[in-house]
Amino acid sequence: MIIVETIDYRRGAVRIIDQSALPAVERYLDLGDVDALAGAIRTMKIRGAPAIGIAAAYGVLLALERALGGDRYAFDHGEPGRPVPIPEGTDARSLERAALEAIDLLGRTRPTAVNLFWALDRMRRAISGAGEDAAALCEAASAEAFALHDGELELERRIGEHGAALIKDGARILTHCNAGGLATAGYGTALAVIYAARGQGKDVQVFADETRPLLQGARLTAWELRRAGIPVTLLCDGAAASLIASGRIDAVITGADRVAANGDSANKIGTLGLAVSCARSGVPFYIAAPWSSIDMATPDGSMIPIEERDPLEVTRIQGVDIAPQGVSVYNPAFDVTPAELITALVTETGVIRRPDEGSLAEAARRAGCSPSRKPPRNP
Amino acid sequence: MIIVETIDYRRGAVRIIDQSALPAVERYLDLGDVDALAGAIRTMKIRGAPAIGIAAAYGVLLALERALGGDRYAFDHGEPGRPVPIPEGTDARSLERAALEAIDLLGRTRPTAVNLFWALDRMRRAISGAGEDAAALCEAASAEAFALHDGELELERRIGEHGAALIKDGARILTHCNAGGLATAGYGTALAVIYAARGQGKDVQVFADETRPLLQGARLTAWELRRAGIPVTLLCDGAAASLIASGRIDAVITGADRVAANGDSANKIGTLGLAVSCARSGVPFYIAAPWSSIDMATPDGSMIPIEERDPLEVTRIQGVDIAPQGVSVYNPAFDVTPAELITALVTETGVIRRPDEGSLAEAARRAGCSPSRKPPRNP
Repeated sequence: MIIVETIDYRRGAVRIIDQSALPAVERYLDLGDVDALAGAIRTMKIRGAPAIGIAAAYGVLLALERALGGDRYAFDHGEPGRPVPIPEGTDARSLERAALEAIDLLGRTRPTAVNLFWALDRMRRAISGAGEDAAALCEAASAEAFALHDGELELERRIGEHGAALIKDGARILTHCNAGGLATAGYGTALAVIYAARGQGKDVQVFADETRPLLQGARLTAWELRRAGIPVTLLCDGAAASLIASGRIDAVITGADRVAANGDSANKIGTLGLAVSCARSGVPFYIAAPWSSIDMATPDGSMIPIEERDPLEVTRIQGVDIAPQGVSVYNPAFDVTPAELITALVTETGVIRRPDEGSLAEAARRAGCSPSRKPPRNP
Repeated sequence: MIIVETIDYRRGAVRIIDQSALPAVERYLDLGDVDALAGAIRTMKIRGAPAIGIAAAYGVLLALERALGGDRYAFDHGEPGRPVPIPEGTDARSLERAALEAIDLLGRTRPTAVNLFWALDRMRRAISGAGEDAAALCEAASAEAFALHDGELELERRIGEHGAALIKDGARILTHCNAGGLATAGYGTALAVIYAARGQGKDVQVFADETRPLLQGARLTAWELRRAGIPVTLLCDGAAASLIASGRIDAVITGADRVAANGDSANKIGTLGLAVSCARSGVPFYIAAPWSSIDMATPDGSMIPIEERDPLEVTRIQGVDIAPQGVSVYNPAFDVTPAELITALVTETGVIRRPDEGSLAEAARRAGCSPSRKPPRNP
């Protein structure tokens, strides 16, 4: 089901696809220690909040692997039940110390990626609950990291499954940014819906906004859709409005970084304009996001803080200056789409039509979900 | 009144600002022959339909200058009444031949720039009406070229004057692409409104969309507004919707490439999305354009052909590839904003509120204008 081998833990190393080299080069990196992994996160060789969360959990395994110091690898996602070879005289305390040092280091790589802290918290709890036995600690840590990874994949699969019911055969779908396999465990959120529809034999054609400033649509979404054999057409963000107005788009699907309790949804800058155009033209506007992105503690979109990012993201493209030196820049990373513009919200437990405070609370109760405050998904 | 010395004819040469070097370098080129000028148009050292029209007219003067072969220059826009020194034995027929050759060459530089053909037609008529006298031919040609240039500047001044009445003190204006001095005789259409408001002592703050794919907002609008001392903030096109929705924009003003008889207006791709956002948020959306852009022969926007441009404009930025090789691209140069979304149309004869078939026809009658079919303004 995986579309892209975004990240995995194999034979004692974290294997990632180097997203900084895409789309020109498809290159995989095997990272054998925590420092290398932290560097890869910092330099955005791996990006997308869910993917970073998985990377961070795996970073803790790398630290344990090093602390164990054996001549064979200790962990492998392909052999989750593999007995951990504990060298003679291994002290659980020294393993724990190494893990906590790694957690501290990894927590300083991308200060705004909340999934990072959520994943590191899970690892910290797993380790501290393991007691004084080194083997138990290793087993608890690896089980937690693999469960976190597998859990992300499973919820992406479910999002795709539920969302695919909204997609008719022959649909022309417009998307924004990269809410795909590269941002996640390998299947995506918005793009999971497209992959699942395709998997059901439906013809689907995708239009991908390039998504300035960081061009995730041009660099990543176009790349992964082509790789998956799904027809994709790239356009500048400003061209979406006329495409939607022309009747050549059947639905718009994006991810979300945080959904408030009333359904207002923060996502990559440029999403709101798509929703406004959809409303004017009667085109469905869907958001696909896991419950972990639904923040019932935030009553509405006005309470979602919007990060403003480095002006250089706007004034310099791939190292080339495109604007006058020193010009003022407005560079918000996200915008908020009001719930009234959202036709449906696709989660791992089902589709919530016309999301609002009532329908979200009811869906949460029905699904037995405990929505968390954990933002955001695809920074 | 001129904001930028976009183009002029001085001492026998065409002086232009090299727009391909902006915003990094402010460089002026003195082009002494038709080939050099044609090359500058082709390579977009000079761009913007009105500016190209003026350049083409001046190219014909360059050809005459060369054919006259004197040791002094024949024409200078700073001395329009300057007697032309006609060398002994100058044959009007050979001058006409040189001029027509230049017209032919210049007409092949930018096949889609309609102002180019309009300007060259004016020059052809002026020359062919001059009869057998070499001096009369030179006077007719230079008078026509300078009149064309002066006429463009005067109508830009009037557009600014009429539009400024719509701008309140302290206004925060969002604009798209470059409908400024660099695209025109030196004052602009949409930006003329801002310059005129500023000239009346009003505080004005401008937000400039970067305007992908060709980044005219980032490269040109930001540069010329800063140079004119007007505060400007650059943003990615996708960030405009949330800025408009947030209440931080008092009006949006753009130029237009062609206005149909019912008020539907074609302009740089990305304009429609701004108008849709304005309508949703109750923000005025203005278009500033001369009557020469109002095409009463085109009944509505659906009849305006939309040029699709080179995919490389999208997939390669300043020489750097940003998308997978061979990806499909949708790259329309323009979109059409329906008249119902346009609060007012600012022309050189006044402001037309809620433009539609009736109000446009009435305004044309009142102003004694003969709207032409001549598109477009700011390619």
